[in-house]
Amino acid sequence: MAQKPSIPKGTRDFNAEEVAKRSYIMETIKEQFQIFGFQPIETPSFENSETLMGKYGDEGDRLIFKILNSGEFLKKISDDDYNQKSESLITPKISEKALRYDLTVPFARYVVQHQNDIEFPFKRYQIQPVWRADRPQKGRFREFFQCDADVVGSKSLFQEVEFVQLYDAVFSALKLEGVTIKINNRKILSGIAEVIGAQDKLIDFTVALDKLDKIGEEKVKEEMRGKGISEDGITKLQPLFTLKGDFGNQIESLKSILSTSEIGLKGIEELEFINTAISNLKLKTATLQLDVTLARGLNYYTGAIFEVSAPEGVKMGSIGGGGRYDDLTGIFGLKDMSGVGISFGLDRIYLVLEELNLFPSTIAESTKVLFINFGDKEAMFSLGAVTKLRQAHIKAELFPDAAVSGKQMKKQMNYANRRNIPFVVIMGEEELKSEVFTLKNMASGEQHKVEFGALLDLLK
Amino acid sequence: MAQKPSIPKGTRDFNAEEVAKRSYIMETIKEQFQIFGFQPIETPSFENSETLMGKYGDEGDRLIFKILNSGEFLKKISDDDYNQKSESLITPKISEKALRYDLTVPFARYVVQHQNDIEFPFKRYQIQPVWRADRPQKGRFREFFQCDADVVGSKSLFQEVEFVQLYDAVFSALKLEGVTIKINNRKILSGIAEVIGAQDKLIDFTVALDKLDKIGEEKVKEEMRGKGISEDGITKLQPLFTLKGDFGNQIESLKSILSTSEIGLKGIEELEFINTAISNLKLKTATLQLDVTLARGLNYYTGAIFEVSAPEGVKMGSIGGGGRYDDLTGIFGLKDMSGVGISFGLDRIYLVLEELNLFPSTIAESTKVLFINFGDKEAMFSLGAVTKLRQAHIKAELFPDAAVSGKQMKKQMNYANRRNIPFVVIMGEEELKSEVFTLKNMASGEQHKVEFGALLDLLK
Repeated sequence: MAQKPSIPKGTRDFNAEEVAKRSYIMETIKEQFQIFGFQPIETPSFENSETLMGKYGDEGDRLIFKILNSGEFLKKISDDDYNQKSESLITPKISEKALRYDLTVPFARYVVQHQNDIEFPFKRYQIQPVWRADRPQKGRFREFFQCDADVVGSKSLFQEVEFVQLYDAVFSALKLEGVTIKINNRKILSGIAEVIGAQDKLIDFTVALDKLDKIGEEKVKEEMRGKGISEDGITKLQPLFTLKGDFGNQIESLKSILSTSEIGLKGIEELEFINTAISNLKLKTATLQLDVTLARGLNYYTGAIFEVSAPEGVKMGSIGGGGRYDDLTGIFGLKDMSGVGISFGLDRIYLVLEELNLFPSTIAESTKVLFINFGDKEAMFSLGAVTKLRQAHIKAELFPDAAVSGKQMKKQMNYANRRNIPFVVIMGEEELKSEVFTLKNMASGEQHKVEFGALLDLLK
Repeated sequence: MAQKPSIPKGTRDFNAEEVAKRSYIMETIKEQFQIFGFQPIETPSFENSETLMGKYGDEGDRLIFKILNSGEFLKKISDDDYNQKSESLITPKISEKALRYDLTVPFARYVVQHQNDIEFPFKRYQIQPVWRADRPQKGRFREFFQCDADVVGSKSLFQEVEFVQLYDAVFSALKLEGVTIKINNRKILSGIAEVIGAQDKLIDFTVALDKLDKIGEEKVKEEMRGKGISEDGITKLQPLFTLKGDFGNQIESLKSILSTSEIGLKGIEELEFINTAISNLKLKTATLQLDVTLARGLNYYTGAIFEVSAPEGVKMGSIGGGGRYDDLTGIFGLKDMSGVGISFGLDRIYLVLEELNLFPSTIAESTKVLFINFGDKEAMFSLGAVTKLRQAHIKAELFPDAAVSGKQMKKQMNYANRRNIPFVVIMGEEELKSEVFTLKNMASGEQHKVEFGALLDLLK
């Protein structure tokens, strides 16, 4: 009994058109990464378990795909341990490797392992798949690509400026105009927590603030009260809820709110530097926007925080994000290595380009011309022409089987049609004698008899 | 205590130069695949275990990397089963997914699963990594890329002809001239076995014959005797050992050896068709050679067998291989789907190009120009110029940190040198005032003062 073929849930097959569209996005990102001076690295799909485990919290540890040891993997377990039949006890003994969960930890491992061969500041990009044992749902997969660019080894804010420019450059190159690059700074959030006397409640407070757009001011305040933030603190926050106007106006308001917080003022200074630079340099199609409610990756970001949203009217979560982290490589023994990086959300960008019809129309084009096959003699002559066309970089094919009836010839024509091949060459007995080719335009139905030189010119 | 970072044995990190060289090979292959009318597909990194298990023999089953189920994976095992502590019993209960072992079985699964969306003959290519739990050794890895092109749905020998041309086109495009495309046919081997009355010993007999080059005629005969092939049979084989001359001459000798074998003569006919076509069409830089000792993949190949060897003088195993198979998709329930395909050995091609110094010299070039950073004011002006250069697709960078001493400026120059950046722009206080740029050629040491327009032209 033959198996009914299927793939694991949360994974995907990609057909030719999908591969072409995904490549288009990745190649566009890659080109801008390179223009900005980033260099590619690649790391193995699986790492030693100890490299990954404990780096993403308990939830992350659970979602990491673990690879079963080969051979007699049960032998390493003592009978006592074995008899407890406990996953947490058994897992580390039967699995020593795990699939990459993101590109950041492998990058940190790479930097430390190869530190003597690397010139710092090190600007690297990496475009590779990652795997997560998450519950699959619409738009969430168990295998997906990440596209990351990071710089480590410099604290200069010019990096942040360049990353804003890089987002603008990539989305402009993709013709995806009108994206919003939202920026915040961890130091601002720390400053606010300080001012309202809730340093120990930084996460609670930002989680609540993050919901302002969705649930409104009153509900946010309610949640803050629930988390034990004082009425006095909430009063001090009042100006935050009404923060309005452009980047400059918001900065002025923040200055008065945070006037007593050293770290808060430092955050403002950093944001001002970036905003002034971007105002001078100008963006092509994106907008930089201050968003003090932006609180992603608060566990590891220490300075700038970025998030990119699709143009207005497109319902989609963030299509990119990133920020500055101060001790990425510490876990592997290399201290004081500040870094900053951004990521592009390939799958979501794909959906946005699809929705706005922004993929170039030439993407679905594959083969340019199909030669109909009328038998070995004609086919052999045709293959000579196909060979020459290919040498001129024209995508050409010969139908492999001979049409011995009108019906079969029709079948070959249909094949060309269904594969979107725009031209067909008919090279039958008559054409063979006179060494001319009948070129048919599949869209218009027009036919021309031409010699090879003219054929080549027409197809170029 | 910080972890000492390392990667699993048999896996590799790739630095920027290695990524660039590997991409160069893959892009060249991909371009020719497309010119020949092949279309890309991609399949998930892991498949359901039942898709892969049992498809590669017992040894293959052992070498497949299995992924541990998530969550409480031991619960599914009855206590009775568990207490036997047996890998063969436990493995299928704790692992339901496995990493791709090659691209052929996933391709077969894809064809069957998507048969209603595919136009046959289906010409697909696939360039993705595969994983094998093999003992790592020099040149053998646990993670490596395969580059495959296959056609399914046609028995036409024009496919074989085109695959010979495709090999020639790819290696010519890589400037790797003088490769030998060896061809054989499973039917020839069957015919020989038939003639010497050893149909049941086809594998034994071909394994011995395959060693002719290495161990010589006498030892091969000895091995055949050891495997129970009759003295009479070995006598009949004699002409095989002295098969000489060009393709045509060898074919003539084979015709007399195989005159009584219908299947053998069919194999000869197929080889002649391919050889005649290739003689007419001519190869650019490769040579097609008949090699009756070629016996790779005898378990599944049913017609043509291909293997490509590097140019003479380069010690390297085969750098490509393939053949015709008649029932690839049968295991998944789609019968009578003949296919033929070839594969390129990325890692070995890499080593050959390295040895013969055939990588383009421009491959290691990354950033074209680095702007030295003399402080925020100068850097801000420089970043304006860098931005304009990038918009003109010139790879440009600004050193992120300010040089506040001669020593630090020297450090930035050294950074450019070590990263092979050919030009440096010095934009100090004086240059800022006059808005000119001092462009330094790092190889010659020459310096020029130029305005922005001239700078752009010089770097283009």
